[in-house]
Amino acid sequence: MKKSLLMLCFFLIGITNAQNIQSPSKNIRVDFNLNADGTPQYAVSYKNKLVVLESKLGIKLKEGGDLVSGLTIDNVKNTSFNESWKPVLGEQSSIQNHYNELTVSLSQKATQRKINIIFRVFDEGVAFRYDFPKQPKLNYFIITDEITQFNLAGNHKTFWIPGDFDSQEYVFNETRLSEIDNDKLNLNNGIALKTIGGKTVVQSPLMMKSDDKIYLNIFEAAVVNYPVMHLNVNTKNFELTSFLVSNAIGDKAYLQAPCVSPWRTIMVSDDARDIVSSKMILNLNEPSKLDDTSWIKPMKYVGIWWEMHVGESTWDYAGSQNASNVLDQSLKPTGKHGATTENTKRYIDFAAKNGFDGVLVEGWNTGWEDWAGNWKEEVFDFVTPYPDFDIKAISEYAKSKNVKMIMHHETSGSVANYERHMDRAFENMVKYGYPAVKSGYVGRIIPRGEFHDGQTMVNHFNYAARRAADYKLMLNSHESSRPTGYSRTYPNYIAAEAARGNEFNAWSTGNPPDHETILPFTRLLGGPMDYTPGIFEIKMNHYDPKKTEQVHTTLAKQLALYVTMYSPLQMAADLPENYEKYPDAFQFIKDVAVDWDESKYLEAEPGDYLTVVRKAKNSGKWFLGAITDENARNSEIKLDFLPKGKKYKAIIYEDAKNAHWQKNPIAYKIKTVEVTSKSAIKLTLAPGGGTAISFEPVK
Amino acid sequence: MKKSLLMLCFFLIGITNAQNIQSPSKNIRVDFNLNADGTPQYAVSYKNKLVVLESKLGIKLKEGGDLVSGLTIDNVKNTSFNESWKPVLGEQSSIQNHYNELTVSLSQKATQRKINIIFRVFDEGVAFRYDFPKQPKLNYFIITDEITQFNLAGNHKTFWIPGDFDSQEYVFNETRLSEIDNDKLNLNNGIALKTIGGKTVVQSPLMMKSDDKIYLNIFEAAVVNYPVMHLNVNTKNFELTSFLVSNAIGDKAYLQAPCVSPWRTIMVSDDARDIVSSKMILNLNEPSKLDDTSWIKPMKYVGIWWEMHVGESTWDYAGSQNASNVLDQSLKPTGKHGATTENTKRYIDFAAKNGFDGVLVEGWNTGWEDWAGNWKEEVFDFVTPYPDFDIKAISEYAKSKNVKMIMHHETSGSVANYERHMDRAFENMVKYGYPAVKSGYVGRIIPRGEFHDGQTMVNHFNYAARRAADYKLMLNSHESSRPTGYSRTYPNYIAAEAARGNEFNAWSTGNPPDHETILPFTRLLGGPMDYTPGIFEIKMNHYDPKKTEQVHTTLAKQLALYVTMYSPLQMAADLPENYEKYPDAFQFIKDVAVDWDESKYLEAEPGDYLTVVRKAKNSGKWFLGAITDENARNSEIKLDFLPKGKKYKAIIYEDAKNAHWQKNPIAYKIKTVEVTSKSAIKLTLAPGGGTAISFEPVK
Repeated sequence: MKKSLLMLCFFLIGITNAQNIQSPSKNIRVDFNLNADGTPQYAVSYKNKLVVLESKLGIKLKEGGDLVSGLTIDNVKNTSFNESWKPVLGEQSSIQNHYNELTVSLSQKATQRKINIIFRVFDEGVAFRYDFPKQPKLNYFIITDEITQFNLAGNHKTFWIPGDFDSQEYVFNETRLSEIDNDKLNLNNGIALKTIGGKTVVQSPLMMKSDDKIYLNIFEAAVVNYPVMHLNVNTKNFELTSFLVSNAIGDKAYLQAPCVSPWRTIMVSDDARDIVSSKMILNLNEPSKLDDTSWIKPMKYVGIWWEMHVGESTWDYAGSQNASNVLDQSLKPTGKHGATTENTKRYIDFAAKNGFDGVLVEGWNTGWEDWAGNWKEEVFDFVTPYPDFDIKAISEYAKSKNVKMIMHHETSGSVANYERHMDRAFENMVKYGYPAVKSGYVGRIIPRGEFHDGQTMVNHFNYAARRAADYKLMLNSHESSRPTGYSRTYPNYIAAEAARGNEFNAWSTGNPPDHETILPFTRLLGGPMDYTPGIFEIKMNHYDPKKTEQVHTTLAKQLALYVTMYSPLQMAADLPENYEKYPDAFQFIKDVAVDWDESKYLEAEPGDYLTVVRKAKNSGKWFLGAITDENARNSEIKLDFLPKGKKYKAIIYEDAKNAHWQKNPIAYKIKTVEVTSKSAIKLTLAPGGGTAISFEPVK
Repeated sequence: MKKSLLMLCFFLIGITNAQNIQSPSKNIRVDFNLNADGTPQYAVSYKNKLVVLESKLGIKLKEGGDLVSGLTIDNVKNTSFNESWKPVLGEQSSIQNHYNELTVSLSQKATQRKINIIFRVFDEGVAFRYDFPKQPKLNYFIITDEITQFNLAGNHKTFWIPGDFDSQEYVFNETRLSEIDNDKLNLNNGIALKTIGGKTVVQSPLMMKSDDKIYLNIFEAAVVNYPVMHLNVNTKNFELTSFLVSNAIGDKAYLQAPCVSPWRTIMVSDDARDIVSSKMILNLNEPSKLDDTSWIKPMKYVGIWWEMHVGESTWDYAGSQNASNVLDQSLKPTGKHGATTENTKRYIDFAAKNGFDGVLVEGWNTGWEDWAGNWKEEVFDFVTPYPDFDIKAISEYAKSKNVKMIMHHETSGSVANYERHMDRAFENMVKYGYPAVKSGYVGRIIPRGEFHDGQTMVNHFNYAARRAADYKLMLNSHESSRPTGYSRTYPNYIAAEAARGNEFNAWSTGNPPDHETILPFTRLLGGPMDYTPGIFEIKMNHYDPKKTEQVHTTLAKQLALYVTMYSPLQMAADLPENYEKYPDAFQFIKDVAVDWDESKYLEAEPGDYLTVVRKAKNSGKWFLGAITDENARNSEIKLDFLPKGKKYKAIIYEDAKNAHWQKNPIAYKIKTVEVTSKSAIKLTLAPGGGTAISFEPVK
């Protein structure tokens, strides 16, 4: 007894107010201290240059006083961690998780409360979280604010979208930090529901580049039982403060100790490729909770979906989507309903013929005739098909063709209704053999007053993934909060939308040519996105001469997106008849893998370009994707990623000479060359263009 | 075409701004008009005397203008209705539904919107509702307020409880309307969660008596997809205004036309017995939606419940109910857990031996060790038993003894969590053969910001009843919003608590002796209450000499409550060992019926006394219950309700001569006399006492 007491005293005496920790590479260093008020502060330097100046940390509580000042250090602990793990699906078959950790245990004398701050420093960035240990004086508590600061060293260039509580489906703005201003945005952008938190509130991941060419990215990982963190930017001094999304009554998070906040992350590098290739966010999440993951499969799919976006058919059987206002109650089929038995069989045939794993069908169930925009609680029951959709016959037909059906559950934001029906909905999927569900959350949330990004909804999305896992179902959520790596923990959560997808090109101002060069530096850091690439009929006047909308890429770039936008769930989004018009280009979509052993980002600059090569899982094939923004681009790629001494047939799908996303988007050419690891390939990308390459081993 | 146009003109010309309608008996008359502002007004007279002076009607909307003024009459329609229907369970085997109806169709020129006001006038009162027909200019809408007024003719005596959004478990206050003041209440009343709407807001049913001895009762019927209506009292001019319970963000109701409001009801009579015996509230609800009701059975039950209230055992296995704060995580059984396999079998044996239908067990499932008062979302999963509760063995044992088990689902107010688990919970009940569930809603509601009486929760309680019906389960909800006749529509919703039950006598200031004389005029008008009568060990010092709490009745009154408090679900709430001490008195509880062919209220005065006789369903037996308040009472009852010429053995359970609820509560005597329809019986009730009589036909 005496001995341990002595050791404890020695230990306490050894603690100073200033602590620091470095990355394994020693390029990144975090300095921690308590200021004169007993407020925790940290700073981050990269290669001996401060990139985050002294910044405050703390949590405000609804009851019993804030955990912001009056803190003293009880203990510090330094540890290191280095191991690799195998994701079920991923960009690489093995992921290294290597960091140094500093835990600072703090207590507040006045309240006898304790809080720990845990730092992890990886080679590509810093993470920290608040940890609330089990303790007598803090059991249940309500967080009213988090004052976490990121005090940036300069007026960096940023790629930002407004801090909206209900949507991330914005075009990125590329400005200096000082120029952030949501009031100046053109909000005629195709987003129906917008709830912007304030003039200078932006979303994370926030990608930045300093004048001295340091890339910085602020984000979060493992958002579990906590709201989404946006960032409030001081446009004068470039101090960013956490801005948590509130619930219906203005609270931020309801917690019970022991518990932790999500990780707040700061990636930093002088090479942009380190940011896009980082697995830090995944590493900061808990390992898989699922023992058996054999049923989790990557999927390439087609579906009854784009035809509704381009106006060729409708989700609803009766044609108005707001038939409630029609005084005549009867639903008269318009003949334009997409999800018919016949049309579904056509897609199943197409999928079977071309080797696709799955077929998604939207608009198969009742409710679409009066679903949107009215905060209606009971819209869908998730089990009743429209009279022209024979779910049993379709399910049997798909099975006979060895094609998997993907269920669609649009909730219209009425989560209360979805949770009430979820077990019945999932049982129905099991009954008809649907292994995957695409969920949708278009509209204001019910419980009313909640937001898509609040704690309630974060919990819902995670619950849906867990409950789906109970039924061995894969989940792809649309209009959800953006992922922060939970797919490591529940690998059946295979994809999400949660950013501005390809669909906006069909009926809005669309996605500018640089959009897909920014997503890998932002949205994709948290997990795969169901972007739905593969549009061949680029211009919507194909369907209606009056239409002026178009996809803002060349056709070749649409192919490249299958490689640049990592997802184990990839749609070939265009209509079968459009693919049949361009069978040579379509061949790439048929060939490309969606699950990988290895990925190498060869060239990357946010907002400008991205080139990546990936080795298909359990295969000798490699695929390359290269994209550019609105500017043409030439580069030469060394093929030294290929195994030495092996010959490959490289099938190159590239923009034709006169191609241009706007003026001539469909012009592509395909050539085949034989290459080895010693070869180089010249990439020639048109404005808004791209290149896709398959490398097949020559036997 | 021309002809119908002419007819329409004629019809319109025939409409005047003033309309009226009378009850079938012509005792009640409603006058309707539009004032100069085009605001609807009504007045009610009883036997040619105004009881509700001119009072305004109208609805305020969030968008597009209020439906309060600028209205004109488009049409009026008068109809009559008279039919009888058979409730599945009830106070009588057949219920007459007889009323005259006036529908006034209104429109608002400025908005081109329409609203109808429908009046129904019964012999015992008036009902009216707002009806929103399907129309082009009003589809989805949000109600922000209802301005329905009840402009009373005088400063009546009232029996009121404060307008709390989360609880009705109050003692009634008996004052003049002018004396209503929630600020003066002693709120140290055992109610944990209170959310009182304002100084002069009271709940309905509001029972009143005028100086000229007219009984008035303001309530509502068929509260479906709408919040509960409280009443804001102007204590100067006695004008009452509807006060709807809001949701998390201050809205009152989300509706879509066509739809209706609940019925606002005003019962009026110069005979108090007309109020307690009225079936108006049930009649105003929709007929049963269930085709097969054969599985809906009345139940007399015992259970593991009162022993927790008196402190003999605990709900939780580990003893603290807030074990989360115990730093040692392990749950150490205290040995005081009530819901053990052994104890449950003891109750099953007791039920089987004494002819009870069911056994309720509370505290059988995990969660109770950390459940209350912390707004915790995930407490119970509703399926996992504590390690000392062998649900399979118990279910088999109960079956072997022909006893039904009653499941308990405490939600701790976390309705989001309950709805998520409801299907699993109900499937678990079906699996183990539990035909009925008692649900509980102790604590603040989750979704956070919602109240027990808001639209969200009203919808939840009704949903739970409907979903239970899908599984053929009977529902008894505690801490729910108070019923308004929905048990007609879903007769499996057999009972609710929703008022101050007998339990408060175990551990709080309790229920004063007049409490049970007021409930039939208030809470019971909406549907059966699970009051849990039958306490024989009246004083809590029986369990612990330090305790001063007690039931505020005599033992004989506890017996009488089985008859005066109608419910098809009645608990014999005391412990088996207490019943075994008083086998002669216990005989009444064993004998008394819970479902009836006929009921006659012989004497009734709110706050003072009640005497009722009932004929058991499909039986020749009659039962009488008579109760008094804190005053002793003598009366003589003519037995002319008995069939003529038949002899009956009347077993009379009455207060002993020196009985007194406080000084000598257990003193009772039992005598048997032979009677016929020509006999009379003298009732002698002690202060806080009662009399119970069984009439058995002599063969």
